[in-house]
Amino acid sequence: MLFHVRMNVNLPAAMPAEEATRLKLDEKALAHRLQEEGKWRHLWRIAGQYANVSVFDVDSVDELHALLTSLPLLPYMQVEVMPLCRHPSSIRLDDR
Amino acid sequence: MLFHVRMNVNLPAAMPAEEATRLKLDEKALAHRLQEEGKWRHLWRIAGQYANVSVFDVDSVDELHALLTSLPLLPYMQVEVMPLCRHPSSIRLDDR
Amino acid sequence: MLFHVRMNVNLPAAMPAEEATRLKLDEKALAHRLQEEGKWRHLWRIAGQYANVSVFDVDSVDELHALLTSLPLLPYMQVEVMPLCRHPSSIRLDDR
Amino acid sequence: MLFHVRMNVNLPAAMPAEEATRLKLDEKALAHRLQEEGKWRHLWRIAGQYANVSVFDVDSVDELHALLTSLPLLPYMQVEVMPLCRHPSSIRLDDR
Amino acid sequence: MLFHVRMNVNLPAAMPAEEATRLKLDEKALAHRLQEEGKWRHLWRIAGQYANVSVFDVDSVDELHALLTSLPLLPYMQVEVMPLCRHPSSIRLDDR
Amino acid sequence: MLFHVRMNVNLPAAMPAEEATRLKLDEKALAHRLQEEGKWRHLWRIAGQYANVSVFDVDSVDELHALLTSLPLLPYMQVEVMPLCRHPSSIRLDDR
Amino acid sequence: MLFHVRMNVNLPAAMPAEEATRLKLDEKALAHRLQEEGKWRHLWRIAGQYANVSVFDVDSVDELHALLTSLPLLPYMQVEVMPLCRHPSSIRLDDR
Amino acid sequence: MLFHVRMNVNLPAAMPAEEATRLKLDEKALAHRLQEEGKWRHLWRIAGQYANVSVFDVDSVDELHALLTSLPLLPYMQVEVMPLCRHPSSIRLDDR
Amino acid sequence: MLFHVRMNVNLPAAMPAEEATRLKLDEKALAHRLQEEGKWRHLWRIAGQYANVSVFDVDSVDELHALLTSLPLLPYMQVEVMPLCRHPSSIRLDDR
Amino acid sequence: MLFHVRMNVNLPAAMPAEEATRLKLDEKALAHRLQEEGKWRHLWRIAGQYANVSVFDVDSVDELHALLTSLPLLPYMQVEVMPLCRHPSSIRLDDR
Repeated sequence: MLFHVRMNVNLPAAMPAEEATRLKLDEKALAHRLQEEGKWRHLWRIAGQYANVSVFDVDSVDELHALLTSLPLLPYMQVEVMPLCRHPSSIRLDDR
Repeated sequence: MLFHVRMNVNLPAAMPAEEATRLKLDEKALAHRLQEEGKWRHLWRIAGQYANVSVFDVDSVDELHALLTSLPLLPYMQVEVMPLCRHPSSIRLDDR
Repeated sequence: MLFHVRMNVNLPAAMPAEEATRLKLDEKALAHRLQEEGKWRHLWRIAGQYANVSVFDVDSVDELHALLTSLPLLPYMQVEVMPLCRHPSSIRLDDR
Repeated sequence: MLFHVRMNVNLPAAMPAEEATRLKLDEKALAHRLQEEGKWRHLWRIAGQYANVSVFDVDSVDELHALLTSLPLLPYMQVEVMPLCRHPSSIRLDDR
Repeated sequence: MLFHVRMNVNLPAAMPAEEATRLKLDEKALAHRLQEEGKWRHLWRIAGQYANVSVFDVDSVDELHALLTSLPLLPYMQVEVMPLCRHPSSIRLDDR
Repeated sequence: MLFHVRMNVNLPAAMPAEEATRLKLDEKALAHRLQEEGKWRHLWRIAGQYANVSVFDVDSVDELHALLTSLPLLPYMQVEVMPLCRHPSSIRLDDR
Repeated sequence: MLFHVRMNVNLPAAMPAEEATRLKLDEKALAHRLQEEGKWRHLWRIAGQYANVSVFDVDSVDELHALLTSLPLLPYMQVEVMPLCRHPSSIRLDDR
Repeated sequence: MLFHVRMNVNLPAAMPAEEATRLKLDEKALAHRLQEEGKWRHLWRIAGQYANVSVFDVDSVDELHALLTSLPLLPYMQVEVMPLCRHPSSIRLDDR
Repeated sequence: MLFHVRMNVNLPAAMPAEEATRLKLDEKALAHRLQEEGKWRHLWRIAGQYANVSVFDVDSVDELHALLTSLPLLPYMQVEVMPLCRHPSSIRLDDR
Repeated sequence: MLFHVRMNVNLPAAMPAEEATRLKLDEKALAHRLQEEGKWRHLWRIAGQYANVSVFDVDSVDELHALLTSLPLLPYMQVEVMPLCRHPSSIRLDDR
């Protein structure tokens, strides 16, 4: 199942630089792994914003929630989730 | 270049059924062609809504605008466009 | 999987009374069947509004979308879907 | 009487970890007790958000307010309350 | 129990004058009766708007909903309900 | 003249407990006095929120503003004022 | 007492031209009279919009409401009222 | 040329009292001077809010911007500007 | 003086095609003339929307309003005006 | 390709004055260079606000994003991007 997720990141101005760097590295490592596993199907940056649009491919809402709550930056994100399904005009049976 | 496009469709209640059917068929035919040409990369229905999330892959904003204005349903759509770019944590050079 | 669905109904003032009555009866019959099948777990009216809060229990987003698009009143509804999951403070493994 | 309550939690970044842990444990203990007493009928996590959707079953608005203000996390929550009533298409006389 | 209700009225421009007049008279008659019964405790017009702020005093949410749905103008109203309770700084045990 | 006032209170997390206590006591004492004088006609807590709905009965806008600016908690409040007048369907000449 | 009133006008597209003309002439005649009486102190058009910002000088909220409801265009207006009072930095005791 | 300006002031809770006092005195002195020069035509306090509605009379947008940016409280204000022009129903050629 | 104007166009579905065509031709002819006169400095279409972003260069707010109200499509537009001025980081004294 | 960018700047009150000054100087120097290169075509201040409206002329969304993320003030900005294209009523083939 596919879920459209938009994440807006907002790190506190007072966060020490090394903590921010470490968080971002951990986030990146996890993002790489989830993409390689095929769970995090798409990951795009929105131009000009510290925000992304993503598509997750999971077996359940619980799995989606577990993945999102494992993100190191989640406490500093505003997250919006929209469940997606096949569009009748899509030429693909499975548009991942 | 990738653009994230959300389309909310709202056909007037007074539109005759045959006109609605014809518009939807024309829209579907054009959507098929644009997907086959690789211009309309992704097309998902948002669950429970007469709305879709799409990703277009075009050479310019002018081409994007020309594609969108060629859609038969455009006069009955609310459209939001967000330019996308490569995310630094993506494992793909080109996440189409 | 559970999905929280809010439906706001807005019948056009110009709809003939018999058409409205028929639509509501069809909607009610389908709502009864889906509740009896356990797909439509909860259905509450929001006080003072022609709107409801519902909880659906389905196997996939596609099933949810199919159920919602089968509702006779859907063309006259504004629908918002939120995926739900188990809350860590819930005393139930499965709070349906 | 049933009330639909949405709670969005937002702990200040500056809160010491042990204080946050203690607050969450106290909140959880109280949530358990209120669920066991049947006052807090449903408690779901909204996927991807530090937020829940709940249904309370109380004898009066004053009781609802007393329950909500007893929550240790309330000072860090944004709360929205909607009174619910029986839906004419519900198959249950009492959909708790 | 007290509920704060705001009603915004919006009669369609196409409604015949006699129908509007009849609806308003019926609404007024019912409003009078509910005020005399003590159910509709307060009824104020918001200056410059076809809208009112009201306070209802009912035994349950179901009673509130039944009263509101009996209003002849309800199909042309946008209604917002907020449950009220005793304020700790009120000098009255029961501020109706 | 009656004015509908909604006050949302938001004390900063960093405010020392004793300062918060003192402010609330001062606020309560003033609220008592203004209610006894008949200036602050109604004071209700909105269920689940650190917010109230009030009705003030004053001789002028200047008097209303003077009363509101004398509240110790005002610097921590968001305030919305709506002028009220007699509703044509009210059974009271003066619904205070 | 001064009240700041913003009026947005929205005539239905289906209104016959002669009815629109008559309404506007009646509105203008009344606006002239109220300005000459000193009740309607200021009347400005917002650039590019069919909307105005006005300042009324009345003895009570009831008088304000009576003036506004006497406007022929009121059924086609969205109106927002804000009570004004003397600003402590104003050089005028009475800034009408 | 007239411009309608709304200013909402929001001093940080952490600002030392003497700094706040000094800023307000400087603001007041400048407001007095600009009113005496006829640049700041009207200055009203919105009842119950730390906000004002003002009308400026300037020769150009650049002059308006220069005046606003000279205000000592500007860094703590949210400002909205609307250009005004003569209303066709105004009885004044120049409603300053 | 420069003003930033955004215009969203919304022609009624019921407008006869020939009337829409005539309005658009008249609008285009006037737009051409105002651009040639240097009053309408920039005119861009927003991708995917029946909307434009424009920059007008006028001598006064009254002139801006006169130009905007002369547009044949104005009754079907939502218009937002923002006064612009020189940016301190601009390399141009006059960025038209 | 042209992109309309609105930037709202919000420096934290706690930022030391010298840091703010340095950031603004660096921002200005970069803005000058990008304008001279023709990448940053227009840069206007919105009257009364610490905000600008800009038009960028770039070869791709990636270039736009790279330019925006190179701005020293970006971490303190809220940025909105709208892709622009040729308006059919423009008299210019290329309205930069």
